[in-house]
This record gives sequence, C-alpha cells and structure tokens, in this order.
Amino acid sequence: MKIAFSAAVGADERAEWLQVLRAACPRHEWLEHWSPGQAVDVAVVANPQPGALQGLHGLRLVQSLWAGVERLLQDPTLPADVPLARMVDPAMNVAMAETAAWAVLSLHRGFFDYARQQRETRWRQLPQRRAGTVPVLVLGLGAMGRAVAARLAALGYPVSAWRRSAAVDVPLPGVQVLHGQAALAAALAGTEVLINLLPLTPDTRAILCAPLFARLPRGACVVNFARGGHLVEPDLLAALDGGHLRHALLDVFAAEPLATDHPFWTHPRVTVLPHVAALTDAHSACRVVAANLDRVERGELPWHLVDRGRGY
Amino acid sequence: MKIAFSAAVGADERAEWLQVLRAACPRHEWLEHWSPGQAVDVAVVANPQPGALQGLHGLRLVQSLWAGVERLLQDPTLPADVPLARMVDPAMNVAMAETAAWAVLSLHRGFFDYARQQRETRWRQLPQRRAGTVPVLVLGLGAMGRAVAARLAALGYPVSAWRRSAAVDVPLPGVQVLHGQAALAAALAGTEVLINLLPLTPDTRAILCAPLFARLPRGACVVNFARGGHLVEPDLLAALDGGHLRHALLDVFAAEPLATDHPFWTHPRVTVLPHVAALTDAHSACRVVAANLDRVERGELPWHLVDRGRGY
Repeated sequence: MKIAFSAAVGADERAEWLQVLRAACPRHEWLEHWSPGQAVDVAVVANPQPGALQGLHGLRLVQSLWAGVERLLQDPTLPADVPLARMVDPAMNVAMAETAAWAVLSLHRGFFDYARQQRETRWRQLPQRRAGTVPVLVLGLGAMGRAVAARLAALGYPVSAWRRSAAVDVPLPGVQVLHGQAALAAALAGTEVLINLLPLTPDTRAILCAPLFARLPRGACVVNFARGGHLVEPDLLAALDGGHLRHALLDVFAAEPLATDHPFWTHPRVTVLPHVAALTDAHSACRVVAANLDRVERGELPWHLVDRGRGY
Repeated sequence: MKIAFSAAVGADERAEWLQVLRAACPRHEWLEHWSPGQAVDVAVVANPQPGALQGLHGLRLVQSLWAGVERLLQDPTLPADVPLARMVDPAMNVAMAETAAWAVLSLHRGFFDYARQQRETRWRQLPQRRAGTVPVLVLGLGAMGRAVAARLAALGYPVSAWRRSAAVDVPLPGVQVLHGQAALAAALAGTEVLINLLPLTPDTRAILCAPLFARLPRGACVVNFARGGHLVEPDLLAALDGGHLRHALLDVFAAEPLATDHPFWTHPRVTVLPHVAALTDAHSACRVVAANLDRVERGELPWHLVDRGRGY
C-alpha cells in the first residue's frame, strides 16, 4: 500500500518515526511528499499541519500516532468520510500508570513536602498515613484511565473511576466504576486525589474549574495528565492560594511549552511536568500501526476508530 | 503480666505509645517506673537509655518497638539470657514498599530531573525508558527487603535481592534471590538502582563504600533506607561528584537529625528524607506486641527473636 506520512515535529523526531515505521511495516511504500489528487491508501499522522491531507485520493484510513485527536478533528480539510484511528499504545498506558503511581505516592506520603523541607534545610517527620485512607478518583476510563485505576488499586488506594456515559466494559477489580453527572458530584466530595485522563471534547473542555474544585474536600489534590484545555488555570490558582486545594500536579497546559513567566513554574504547591506523563513509544506504537495497516489491507475494520460526533 | 515500658522519645510520643499499648493489651499492668530488683514479666522498649532495664527481675522477653536493634545490643546491661524480639510490623513493611516504589519510579522516569528543571524554569522532555530496562538490586531480605522486592517486581522492574547467607524461604515470584559475596559482586555490575535494607551489624557496617560503588556501572543510583552506619558518606560524595553515580536517595544518616551544614542538604543529586521511609505504625505495632505477650503468657516462643550473635 502507499502510505502518506505527515508529522509536524522536529526533523530528528520525524526521521526517527519514519525509520521505525518503515522497519515495522516494510512491505508498504512510505511517502513524505505527494501531489494534489495523488492516490494514497493510508495517512499516518502526528499533529499534521491543517490541510496537510487535503486532496489525497482513495484514502481508506487516517491513523494518528498520538492518543489525543482533538487538534486533528479541528482541521476542516480532514476528509469527512475516511475512518480515523487514534493511537492506543500499550507501552504508553504503562508509562501513564507509572506516572500516576508516582504522583499519588508523592502526594500521599508527603514527598513534595519533604523536597521543600530539603530546600529549607529542615528535618521534620510528617504523619505517615495508610494508602487505604487516601481515596483517588480517576476521570476518564479509556485505555489510560483503566491502566491508571488498576495500578492505583493494586497499590492499596480506594479508587473510583468516572466516565461520562454507561458502557459495558471488562470489570476493573478493586475499582468502583461510576457514570453520569450526579455520581461525579457525589464522588468528588469523598476524593483526596483527582486525576484527569478525559479526552478533550466540547463536553469536557474546562471541566477542571472553580465549581468542581469547590466540590472536592479541603486539602484535596488535582492531577492533570490529559489536556491543558480541561483546566481553567486561574480557578486552580485561586483554589490553591485560598487554601482549599493542597497541591496540583500538571503535565499539560493551555499553551505549551509553558511560558517562562507563568505563575505555575514558581508556585510552591504546583508541580510542573513538560508533557511527559506518557510519551508515545515509537517501537510499540509502530507495531500498533502495522497491525492496523494489515487490517485495512485485508478489508477489515481498523482498531481504535474515533467517533467524530463524540470527539474521541 | 507486669510490663515495663521504656522509650527514649518525646513526652507526646511516649504518651501516645502507652495509650495505644494499653488499649491493645488491656489485661496487663503497664509500668513507667520501677525499683531495682522489681519483678516484671516483659520489657517493651523503644531506644531505651542504656541501663534502663538493669536490675529488673524475672524478665521473660524484651520486645523492641523498632525494627533495628543495633543500639539495644550495644547496651552492656541488656540481660544476656532474656529473649529479645524486634518489631516486624506489617504496616511498616507496606510503608517501606511504597517509599521504594516512589524512589525507583522517580529515578527511572527522571522526576528528580524534572523537579530541577522546574526550579530552572526549563521545559525539556527527557527520553522515556521502560521499567524492564532498569535493573534493581535490593540488599537484605528481611520482611522489609521482601516487601520491597515484591512490590518492585510487580511494577515491572527486573529485581534481584541479595542476602548474606543462604536460607530456605518462601519464594518471591519474579525476584532473583542471591547470596554470598561472589554473587553480590556480579550483581552490582548489572544494577542501575541499589536499595539498601540490610540490618546494621559488624559485617554490614560501611558496606556502601568506594569499592562497592566502583562495582556499580556508571550512572547507577544508590538508595539507603536502612541505617546511616551502612554508608561511608565521603565515598558517596566522591562517587557523585566524580560522575560515577547519578543520584543518591538517603533516609538515614551517620548523625540524625542531619547537621544543617551537611553537604547532602544542598547537593543537586542527593535527595534527603528525614528518616521517614517507614515509620512504625503504633496501631499495627501494638497488635504485634499483643500477640507476642500472649505467646509469652502461654509459655510459647515469641516471634521475631533476635539472634544476638548475628545481630538481627
């Protein structure tokens, strides 16, 4: 098959992706450039420039290398009738579960406080609590939300996980699965650590805002591993500075890289990560791409298709 | 039974211990003061002043509330013929496994580096590695070493665990168990994160020293959760500053609290914790004490007896 590759990333990263993709899918012809109207079977893309796929002929699949496709869906030239698949990379799910475990252990056991004490040359033991007394709520039950909820339950935390709508799913042992707005409101009141892993859609944009923070108990912590658009940044700062929230751990921001004068960088109770909670693992992701290309070639439905109405 | 309680801790902590002990063991008579030659069945102690137990009559058990008994064994007035039990507290083992998981996740995923980048207002993604590529070696296979090794294996790390001598033990799934000096030397060469959980004995004092660091590969990390006496502090600083070791995470020190002018506080690649990797959990520990008092009362051998020749 002919595969169009379009990635708005640096030249080195682009070359690495192409090398790993070609190695994982050697039977196919990988194109970096094409003319309007050229016949291509599949487009494999990572944040392509708007319009990059316009005019391609005969497309049977647009495969994203990224898990989040909200930017792709905003491109009005994205062919409306071509199936779009997002990346569900097992290695990325593991990486996200590791980062979530580190985040919750850090918050539960006071390791951010101890880091501050070290900077102040201060030797002080804080009370040691049991994991079973630290309720965690995961927002979003996609592949990453599920991996995170399962990992935290295995560490002994009381874990609830919320999704917008009811769905029949493989059960998650030790995780209380919730859906709907009323269940969310009730769960927030009993949450100490909130972890956002929702897809960014018109329904979830700005969900992490003052009214939601107000439903959390005093001293709760907020972790955003999804998208910057989920968070109303001034509301978070107000909730931290007013003493209602204890700590925020942020991996994603409204504008990235985070501006050097942004107050998050120096806030004593904000931990900033540079969008690294889970990086796509090229080797693992390219095996996922190869499996989907095989399915298209055999005329089968690709895996992980995006419901464009739903937005993920 | 009559129980003598002796703890060289602050007045508040002492009162809390006594309250929880009395609640867990209400049938017994708890004494805070006694006369020379007074008949007492058991002494329950936490770092007692040397000589505190001298002259007690009829002792059938000395029960430590702390896991490490090296200071107790240095008291020449400790009755030589009385069984000595150390604390093996299940809640403390869980706390240690949590701290070890946080430590290895932090080192593996670069979270100490990201914290430094935040202080420098620097947005930079570091390469993301898989847990399976980060070999961990646990020194010591007591209750805490076993809990730590099992937890890290469950997180996907290749885990080896070393003990001084061979022993028949419950198997640890996913953990390669080693013993003897030759096996230790070989294991160090393939270790990225070394975690010390050995008891402090004449054999293990100063085990974390320049020759051991030299056997680790360049870029390895050292974690000390056992006792300050295990570590030769100038050797560690030299190995860090010479670029051989990447990071050290220290919870215990030759002198505690760590002196305010100690170079560890401000070293960019040393994480200092104030001896909190695993605090004794009074409620859990007092249930362990109650079980041992029952055994003494029934004339049974207490659990977790110290082999004084071995030192733990």
